[in-house]
Amino acid sequence: MNELIFTAKADSEIERLLEAFESQRVCIVTDTNTEKYCLPLLPSLCNLPRISIDAGEKNKNIDTLQLLWRGMSDYGLNRRDLLINIGGGMVSDIGGFAAATYMRGIRYINMPTSLLAAVDASTGGKTAIDFGGIKNLVGAFHRPNATIISPEFFATLPRKEILSGYGEMIKHALLDCHRHLDCLLSADVYKLTNDEWLKLVRMSVDVKRNVVLSDPYERGERRKLNLGHTAGHALEALCLRQGRPISHGHAVALGILAECRMNAEFLRSLFERLCEHVFNLYEPVAVFSGDKDELGRYMLRDKKNQSHDNKISYVRMVDVGRSDIFATTTVGELTESLLKTCGEHMSKVKS
Amino acid sequence: MNELIFTAKADSEIERLLEAFESQRVCIVTDTNTEKYCLPLLPSLCNLPRISIDAGEKNKNIDTLQLLWRGMSDYGLNRRDLLINIGGGMVSDIGGFAAATYMRGIRYINMPTSLLAAVDASTGGKTAIDFGGIKNLVGAFHRPNATIISPEFFATLPRKEILSGYGEMIKHALLDCHRHLDCLLSADVYKLTNDEWLKLVRMSVDVKRNVVLSDPYERGERRKLNLGHTAGHALEALCLRQGRPISHGHAVALGILAECRMNAEFLRSLFERLCEHVFNLYEPVAVFSGDKDELGRYMLRDKKNQSHDNKISYVRMVDVGRSDIFATTTVGELTESLLKTCGEHMSKVKS
Repeated sequence: MNELIFTAKADSEIERLLEAFESQRVCIVTDTNTEKYCLPLLPSLCNLPRISIDAGEKNKNIDTLQLLWRGMSDYGLNRRDLLINIGGGMVSDIGGFAAATYMRGIRYINMPTSLLAAVDASTGGKTAIDFGGIKNLVGAFHRPNATIISPEFFATLPRKEILSGYGEMIKHALLDCHRHLDCLLSADVYKLTNDEWLKLVRMSVDVKRNVVLSDPYERGERRKLNLGHTAGHALEALCLRQGRPISHGHAVALGILAECRMNAEFLRSLFERLCEHVFNLYEPVAVFSGDKDELGRYMLRDKKNQSHDNKISYVRMVDVGRSDIFATTTVGELTESLLKTCGEHMSKVKS
Repeated sequence: MNELIFTAKADSEIERLLEAFESQRVCIVTDTNTEKYCLPLLPSLCNLPRISIDAGEKNKNIDTLQLLWRGMSDYGLNRRDLLINIGGGMVSDIGGFAAATYMRGIRYINMPTSLLAAVDASTGGKTAIDFGGIKNLVGAFHRPNATIISPEFFATLPRKEILSGYGEMIKHALLDCHRHLDCLLSADVYKLTNDEWLKLVRMSVDVKRNVVLSDPYERGERRKLNLGHTAGHALEALCLRQGRPISHGHAVALGILAECRMNAEFLRSLFERLCEHVFNLYEPVAVFSGDKDELGRYMLRDKKNQSHDNKISYVRMVDVGRSDIFATTTVGELTESLLKTCGEHMSKVKS
């Protein structure tokens, strides 16, 4: 069973699933935020055994993982039992990894409560923790047995959180088709109804799902989902290290621009429309020449980087819906492109 | 690639494999014993980056795992690189789990240096660490890309270690056929040549391999490999807790007798021959009525136990090569059978 459910009534769906799964024991994983704000929307789950972890990416570590393993063991979970992750990507990453490794793998359900988790982390089966200062260094491929996506949770998120998910939605639309991209770029992300959310999110998740199904272990096709991430991850890491963190989707949105800029043949008018859209939505991020070396080091450390000799791989857009996943460039060129993108964004805001 | 290589020249085989794998970086995992006694037999590997962990099952834990992850990261291993585990089951379990989870899974080769690891741990793709006092609570299914089995390593092991592997070999022979069982029971385990070792070990590994191939994730068929383990694990845990540890294969050999005894229809003359053989080879283990409750608790906690309501599942032998993997019994009956087996063994030695 590997269900993907779009609904505006998450509670009745989870109730139905619990019956279908026939697990003796069920254990909920939440973080301190989702326990407070999201769990009350799910009365069916309120009285089940629960492990609540501290919110925040910095807790996606080995200590929290051990807390999960210990809790699952204390609740007596066995191989036929079930874990339910209620939260953003941090909860589904670490909860999914706990499910992947407890007794060599038990079943789990994801209920993403952030837009980013809904369109990105909750369906692909990639689970992980950060380790030794490296993001997602340790993890497993372990697909959820069901994912319930409901705008009930993320329609009330702060703007910054909405924009973080939106960055991945731009990526999916670019990888898909002109129609999808138009739909997305013409929507006002702050004024969507539940039905409009469901439509956009479903389109976005479908792109990801189709890619993942064709390449579950990231051996080829799936690499296209890395669009914007070679540059984006480096930017995210730099800002974090400099004590001015930006959201994942924010970094990805700027990373997409930096990577698309690498291809002069990429439809010029579309690229300009994309820049304008992203520059309008997101805060500019100041990056300086002095940051180049550090950005380059982050790019070279990225585990998806398949090249060597200072060359790095990235996803080169040829047209909307057409990309080259085996493209390579130099660290210098991509860093330069990222600096140029961030610089243009800055000057746009100043003017 | 998933090669299983039987050889008496491990070094030339690993040299050949390293070329075939074309990994940029290779990292060796040994424990303090195998680093000293086995690595010198492998000159091709002596100068490669190496992580040596402390020997002993008690180190198959989260701290050692973190040491491996950190070492792999420090050596700059990426997804295309390769880990080589040289050691007994402890090294292949934890090294395999590190390979399964580092960057969501990299390739690895097992070079089992103990007989137990050769016939049991090194090929099935089950990897794990102990956690919270529970054996193999945390792990993953991740098959080695190659396994090199050579009697060079285990022909010089102490008797106790040979007998530990031998327990699993009895299990495989019972699950296979009369011819295999006869071959095994008529060999003098202390006087085998390299060629004789290779023949017996190959027969044994073939049984395991065929079962694993038909059911990689232990959803049905593979459960038959649990023969002797429901009772055996409980005995092993009891002895460990009482400060008089016995080897895994020793516990399994006695566990097989305890479980086979549950089936009165099981060929009587064969059962007696089996008892005599096991009683002659292994030291008796004293178990008392006062240990019953504790043994029962261990049985109920076993993650392979698929039953509930104080009932436990076990593998019921119907004939050599024929078993019922869905059999259940009560904790009381199986504990009683184990006590009776150990009691008979004791009285045999005393007389």
